[in-house]
Amino acid sequence: MRIKIINPNTTWSMTEKIGACARAVASAGTQIVAVSPAMGPVSIESHYDEALAVPGLLQEIAAGERDGIDGYVIACFGDPGLKAARELARGPVVGIAEAAMHMASMVGSRFSVVTTLGRTMGQAWHLAEIYGMERFCANVRACELPVLELEEPGSKARERIADECKRALEEDGSDCIVLGCAGMTDLCEHIGGLLGVPVIDGVAAATKLVESLVALKLQTSKRGELARPLPKAMKGTLEGFTLRG
Amino acid sequence: MRIKIINPNTTWSMTEKIGACARAVASAGTQIVAVSPAMGPVSIESHYDEALAVPGLLQEIAAGERDGIDGYVIACFGDPGLKAARELARGPVVGIAEAAMHMASMVGSRFSVVTTLGRTMGQAWHLAEIYGMERFCANVRACELPVLELEEPGSKARERIADECKRALEEDGSDCIVLGCAGMTDLCEHIGGLLGVPVIDGVAAATKLVESLVALKLQTSKRGELARPLPKAMKGTLEGFTLRG
Amino acid sequence: MRIKIINPNTTWSMTEKIGACARAVASAGTQIVAVSPAMGPVSIESHYDEALAVPGLLQEIAAGERDGIDGYVIACFGDPGLKAARELARGPVVGIAEAAMHMASMVGSRFSVVTTLGRTMGQAWHLAEIYGMERFCANVRACELPVLELEEPGSKARERIADECKRALEEDGSDCIVLGCAGMTDLCEHIGGLLGVPVIDGVAAATKLVESLVALKLQTSKRGELARPLPKAMKGTLEGFTLRG
Amino acid sequence: MRIKIINPNTTWSMTEKIGACARAVASAGTQIVAVSPAMGPVSIESHYDEALAVPGLLQEIAAGERDGIDGYVIACFGDPGLKAARELARGPVVGIAEAAMHMASMVGSRFSVVTTLGRTMGQAWHLAEIYGMERFCANVRACELPVLELEEPGSKARERIADECKRALEEDGSDCIVLGCAGMTDLCEHIGGLLGVPVIDGVAAATKLVESLVALKLQTSKRGELARPLPKAMKGTLEGFTLRG
Amino acid sequence: MRIKIINPNTTWSMTEKIGACARAVASAGTQIVAVSPAMGPVSIESHYDEALAVPGLLQEIAAGERDGIDGYVIACFGDPGLKAARELARGPVVGIAEAAMHMASMVGSRFSVVTTLGRTMGQAWHLAEIYGMERFCANVRACELPVLELEEPGSKARERIADECKRALEEDGSDCIVLGCAGMTDLCEHIGGLLGVPVIDGVAAATKLVESLVALKLQTSKRGELARPLPKAMKGTLEGFTLRG
Amino acid sequence: MRIKIINPNTTWSMTEKIGACARAVASAGTQIVAVSPAMGPVSIESHYDEALAVPGLLQEIAAGERDGIDGYVIACFGDPGLKAARELARGPVVGIAEAAMHMASMVGSRFSVVTTLGRTMGQAWHLAEIYGMERFCANVRACELPVLELEEPGSKARERIADECKRALEEDGSDCIVLGCAGMTDLCEHIGGLLGVPVIDGVAAATKLVESLVALKLQTSKRGELARPLPKAMKGTLEGFTLRG
Repeated sequence: MRIKIINPNTTWSMTEKIGACARAVASAGTQIVAVSPAMGPVSIESHYDEALAVPGLLQEIAAGERDGIDGYVIACFGDPGLKAARELARGPVVGIAEAAMHMASMVGSRFSVVTTLGRTMGQAWHLAEIYGMERFCANVRACELPVLELEEPGSKARERIADECKRALEEDGSDCIVLGCAGMTDLCEHIGGLLGVPVIDGVAAATKLVESLVALKLQTSKRGELARPLPKAMKGTLEGFTLRG
Repeated sequence: MRIKIINPNTTWSMTEKIGACARAVASAGTQIVAVSPAMGPVSIESHYDEALAVPGLLQEIAAGERDGIDGYVIACFGDPGLKAARELARGPVVGIAEAAMHMASMVGSRFSVVTTLGRTMGQAWHLAEIYGMERFCANVRACELPVLELEEPGSKARERIADECKRALEEDGSDCIVLGCAGMTDLCEHIGGLLGVPVIDGVAAATKLVESLVALKLQTSKRGELARPLPKAMKGTLEGFTLRG
Repeated sequence: MRIKIINPNTTWSMTEKIGACARAVASAGTQIVAVSPAMGPVSIESHYDEALAVPGLLQEIAAGERDGIDGYVIACFGDPGLKAARELARGPVVGIAEAAMHMASMVGSRFSVVTTLGRTMGQAWHLAEIYGMERFCANVRACELPVLELEEPGSKARERIADECKRALEEDGSDCIVLGCAGMTDLCEHIGGLLGVPVIDGVAAATKLVESLVALKLQTSKRGELARPLPKAMKGTLEGFTLRG
Repeated sequence: MRIKIINPNTTWSMTEKIGACARAVASAGTQIVAVSPAMGPVSIESHYDEALAVPGLLQEIAAGERDGIDGYVIACFGDPGLKAARELARGPVVGIAEAAMHMASMVGSRFSVVTTLGRTMGQAWHLAEIYGMERFCANVRACELPVLELEEPGSKARERIADECKRALEEDGSDCIVLGCAGMTDLCEHIGGLLGVPVIDGVAAATKLVESLVALKLQTSKRGELARPLPKAMKGTLEGFTLRG
Repeated sequence: MRIKIINPNTTWSMTEKIGACARAVASAGTQIVAVSPAMGPVSIESHYDEALAVPGLLQEIAAGERDGIDGYVIACFGDPGLKAARELARGPVVGIAEAAMHMASMVGSRFSVVTTLGRTMGQAWHLAEIYGMERFCANVRACELPVLELEEPGSKARERIADECKRALEEDGSDCIVLGCAGMTDLCEHIGGLLGVPVIDGVAAATKLVESLVALKLQTSKRGELARPLPKAMKGTLEGFTLRG
Repeated sequence: MRIKIINPNTTWSMTEKIGACARAVASAGTQIVAVSPAMGPVSIESHYDEALAVPGLLQEIAAGERDGIDGYVIACFGDPGLKAARELARGPVVGIAEAAMHMASMVGSRFSVVTTLGRTMGQAWHLAEIYGMERFCANVRACELPVLELEEPGSKARERIADECKRALEEDGSDCIVLGCAGMTDLCEHIGGLLGVPVIDGVAAATKLVESLVALKLQTSKRGELARPLPKAMKGTLEGFTLRG
């Protein structure tokens, strides 16, 4: 089976890290394709960034459909464009926040999310709500780290994140941690070892969930809200997104 | 004061109808600017359409900020891009679903939403939830009318919508109606007269709400989640959306 | 149009302040009538006070209906008698807590309410819940100031309220403030300037909302729960409230 | 112990029926005092009626406190003035909707409320919500019977109520019935026998609950929201409600 | 009437204390039978303990049915086996957490639960939710006391519990206390006297509630989910639990 | 890796079917061990049955821990004993209702559960709530088929279930189906083919989820509520469940 991991920002160093993490957990028969879109923001830290990441993401889904991809992972913790992507795709599409939160609810009582900038905390809570995971979410905490600082060699990001995770367990009454950024995908094992509780990275979690859904032959339902979009003209710069009947 | 009404689809006949309805309810001193974006779908009937309407919408907000616009209305019942728009704008931004639902909660006990295609009902429920209006929403009903059929002279749309509104009152236990599409803005008075209950059009409602917020000098809070997006490069076709510091 | 602002307590100095604030935001063509009832408590700080404020309030609504008033504001943050008032009135009736909370939800992510006595905090949360605004309410905080101290010249009330608002932003993670008492109506601009976030006074907010509803010809629905009360005898001291058919 | 049952409407024939039902379930040592207030509506079928029943009710609570009453029942299914009454009383105060719903949640999975007029259904749902009983409430149904028709000899009320209860079990998936009016207190055993499921009358339920609370020496907490109201002048016709320090 | 109080753990010293507390509040005509099951854990402090307490509890219910018991109390704050017990019993079955929380909601605005070990706090919150009492529950707090330490003469348990109750009032904004363990049944009056707010012991509360339900002839509904279990073979060690038709 | 699938009832024909379905979806390296407990009910159709299935289930978990099992599936749609099992196990434990509902939320908008007897519908709703999946659950429907009829050759069960699934899509507005009994595990593909929407069997879903959690090295958190139960004596018939330190 082929799973396409789409990092919706355009920073390829992060995309490669994400791809490596996905490959590390994928089953023998699974081929991982990790990409960034051809258009959009270099990192996603606001609703504005998120909105502008979605067209490029959808382009990658459309390309994936032509290529016979079996399932998709959206590898940004805001899970941008998830429903639109599901409309386009035949196979399953899973967001990394979605995957991490669902898995956290199965190995602990309550999780804390540890994310990058404080201004994205609202979106994390919003996702917890729409996935039904709010009741498991003890808290969402920010390290006030810009996303791209996670990519810089020698940055203190790793320590600050580990510290915030520790505080989360002590102050939130939580018993597991959800890492709130695709860029943290390589910290999961390190922090888990440090804290002795499950630490969940959405990239790995989503990869296994999509693999599972494909193995179970579960595809996106095309009966209602997630049916393929109606054929329709797009104007101007976005003309290329026109869908034909 | 100047209020910009953005119809996020690219069908200008609808934009003109929307502008006329806004002008009909605006106060003497209010200037209404009604536009469609330069890019995006001709109508919005799916998450895919919505996602692709947002970049054009944000372009219009950015232009509005340069022009000193005081407040904005997003004139599509899915309220696409609302939070991203609020990040860009200094003044208030109100969606028409948001406005209509809030006002409905003040003149009745429970409202029914009557919208176009069944596949958009999920989004209407979603908005009701995130605005806190779910408790007032008795039902969301679809007429299975494509949005653009509302623009066709001689179509049966008007009758079908009125019939669905009548059924809503009888079957849902509701006591007022929210019209679920910007394209229905001109039917409000007609159906209200027919049914003898408040029938609320979001375009008119949002226009008055934005006028009120501007009059009260209430602008979008820039303290937290809705602060101006961080300066950041956008790649590819969307390069023009790059924000500078 | 004529809007009647009813301060449900019988302290006319507060009524006059409230009337002035409403007039300051009303449109050119709007006439503001600000009154206190002929009976009831001098201030409202408990469920008992609230219950005893309602008959006088309803008397003012009934009088307003005879006078052809277009819409009403209930100018006490507990929004006493709102549903009963809506049964009596043809036009819209809006409470100041209702108005302030709705508007806050449109200009920020989450608001803090800053009110007078701690014992009224439960009612503020109750209103947030029934209006659907609980999800936007980060916290309700009290200054432990009796309502009438706001009327005393030279009191420290202004400072204590401003201080509590500042703490709210810092501790609650909120990005706008709702002032929780009609007697604070004149502090709004001062505190807003101080804090640099939207500070919302319900008197002003409700005045603009009623104006908007009247402009939109939206009246209270008479179809269900808010229909005119059935004609019925009242006994004893309240005989004057008997409704005839 | 002495329990005062206050029928908040001024129809004494109903008060006597209510008193008899309470006495029929009271323990040997319990004295039941059943009264109607000296002022207020002859029946309660709207928010307006309810608001005007509260002052008379509070007068009876105040009198009860002077007389050393141990606990109170508010015998109208809208539970008017419950929180204000709790502020005034030392002992417990229980509403009949409150009592019936709580007990229903202990003998069945989900209950249906069968009440009088459709316009009161909103209030029944509201009470279910604020008591935390919404999750047990399968439905609220109205017979469209005015309250006072229950008092008329030879009326068809008894049959219509029994029929609606039967339909409730069949259509709502409920397994017990809550009678939604104090005037139905004498139908409980008859309908219970007919349907073979628990049928709960709030008057009897509240009487036993107040008896229990008094026996357990549980009084209304005076620490926070339900503390005695502050001493305060009342003006005009309601001057008699002035509380002194 | 005869009420059977089942302490689901097998520590008879606790059972006797529980029986004494129930007898102290029971009415003259009520006979209290207090028992521990023949099998199961010596104390209940985990989901594992709870699960293994249930078979013995159900055995006692089955025996009670043969003996003509009128109603049952489950005297462990986790309310283990409540729904299964209701299936077996004709009369009412009430758990002590259920009883205490319901009564707390009638004498205060919000309660704090003070319980034994921190690991049981999740279950207390779970029960608050399923009984609809979450909205009244300000907090659940643990003293980190093992259940059986409450039985040891000379232990500091009494002081630690009283201290935690005091902190609860100060920090949680609550106005009454629910004691979160059947073993605390004898501390209720002492702590209530100390703090001046209602302190509620579930054993006493449940005893009065069952007495009330029996007096009102309200039995467990046998119409739906709580109908008698279908006759069925049990295998192995639990063969004795086989139900015949 | 070794996964133990525990069918908590004692009907081995069903256990074998369940094992076969799990093996059909398991990855190459995964060994499936499918068992029924040595004690307990032959089928689970009530809270009583469920309570009596749990000790045998826990015995199997304890045995699994001694055998070095990596993860567990509880293969009954009521997910009996899930939290107790998690306390005992080091590795992950997933219930089949839990697994099916989570996966359904990722491939559709709203699911319908189709189960056996009507009296178990309450439990299905309860699980939907505690897993956070209530918002995705359009309806729970029963075929009124006893569990063991699914095992009888020549029964009409297959047709009745397929018919109910079809009605679910038409009447509930759902777009995917969750099969509500482990005994339906072999119908999944057949009904999915018939209806053209995702049809989800919990046995297969849970097998893949446990495999994924094990692959990700995510074990049950031992920090809080799910820590290993305290060492403790069990009395009587259940003495064998005593845990030593």
